[in-house]
Amino acid sequence: MAITAKGRATRERIVAGAADHLRRDDPADVTLDDILAATRTSKGQLFHYFPGGKPELLLAVAHHEAERVLDDQEPHLSALTSWSAWESWRDTVVARYRAQGSHCPLAALMTQVRASPGSDEVAAVLLAQWHARLADGVRSLRTQGLVRASADPDAIASAFVAAIQGGVQILRATGDIRHLEAALDVLLADLHRP
Amino acid sequence: MAITAKGRATRERIVAGAADHLRRDDPADVTLDDILAATRTSKGQLFHYFPGGKPELLLAVAHHEAERVLDDQEPHLSALTSWSAWESWRDTVVARYRAQGSHCPLAALMTQVRASPGSDEVAAVLLAQWHARLADGVRSLRTQGLVRASADPDAIASAFVAAIQGGVQILRATGDIRHLEAALDVLLADLHRP
Repeated sequence: MAITAKGRATRERIVAGAADHLRRDDPADVTLDDILAATRTSKGQLFHYFPGGKPELLLAVAHHEAERVLDDQEPHLSALTSWSAWESWRDTVVARYRAQGSHCPLAALMTQVRASPGSDEVAAVLLAQWHARLADGVRSLRTQGLVRASADPDAIASAFVAAIQGGVQILRATGDIRHLEAALDVLLADLHRP
Repeated sequence: MAITAKGRATRERIVAGAADHLRRDDPADVTLDDILAATRTSKGQLFHYFPGGKPELLLAVAHHEAERVLDDQEPHLSALTSWSAWESWRDTVVARYRAQGSHCPLAALMTQVRASPGSDEVAAVLLAQWHARLADGVRSLRTQGLVRASADPDAIASAFVAAIQGGVQILRATGDIRHLEAALDVLLADLHRP
């Protein structure tokens, strides 16, 4: 069955509304009825778009939140073509996670959907896209001769992704954002070195 | 009540035995009776050392596993006084987490003890000690004139801790160890740069 444009819009409205609701409460405590009420959706309509019910909806919301992780780093992440873009991106990442603090909506969702088929893909897709955009950024600097010719875009992108991931995890566990900031600053300073 | 040397040894025997048992099974599924049987401990004896019962025991095991995270990086981590020590440490970290794969005993325990008073301390103590040893290593290189004078031991140590934490988290989520390796290699190469 082909999904029409209107169908896609309805599906996206349900996912975005569910995401907003799930950001405010622990996903473990939220029922399907809560989501139906919050998104003004009928049970029949919800099962039309998500025949698998709550697990399928939560998985769609997890994909939505994963996209948001990257969207929140825009417009910088997709245009890391100058040092000032890299600096702005760094500040945006720190500000985003400082505001988020210890509550990570995506992590809370991942705990819920872990057993669902397809849940591995959420992290894999997020990491691959994040990595690709950062590597593109390093490549852009290299093409312009702004970084050393030996700079390895893939290795540097992997290091940034790992460092942010770890810095955010430490922030969530301890409330301390210094590891995230230090990791970004050390890696950025390295990028600057001849 | 002062704990005698013999008492400390008994307590440590229970914790180590429980840790071994909890490494093999999901801590959520392990009962106190399982642990009593595995460690050949009576209920009375266990409550003598852990009046708070299972939550208190699990917290002690979490501290034990956190110490193990650092012990597994020895003898290199406490003696990062040469480039070869740093390289050996890097290889030890990668080998340890490659062997561990997606199952992290400490993470599984932390999920269980999250609500216990004192659980925040497990991560805080681990991170502080890890950070201190790495910063000592950078300081040692600097004293010997092996790294640039501007190298900031605290920032570099934070970056390594965050990058390992994130690399391990990605390994656990995706089975891919390349982020961990790239992060360590990029940060080590940076340390080498003038």
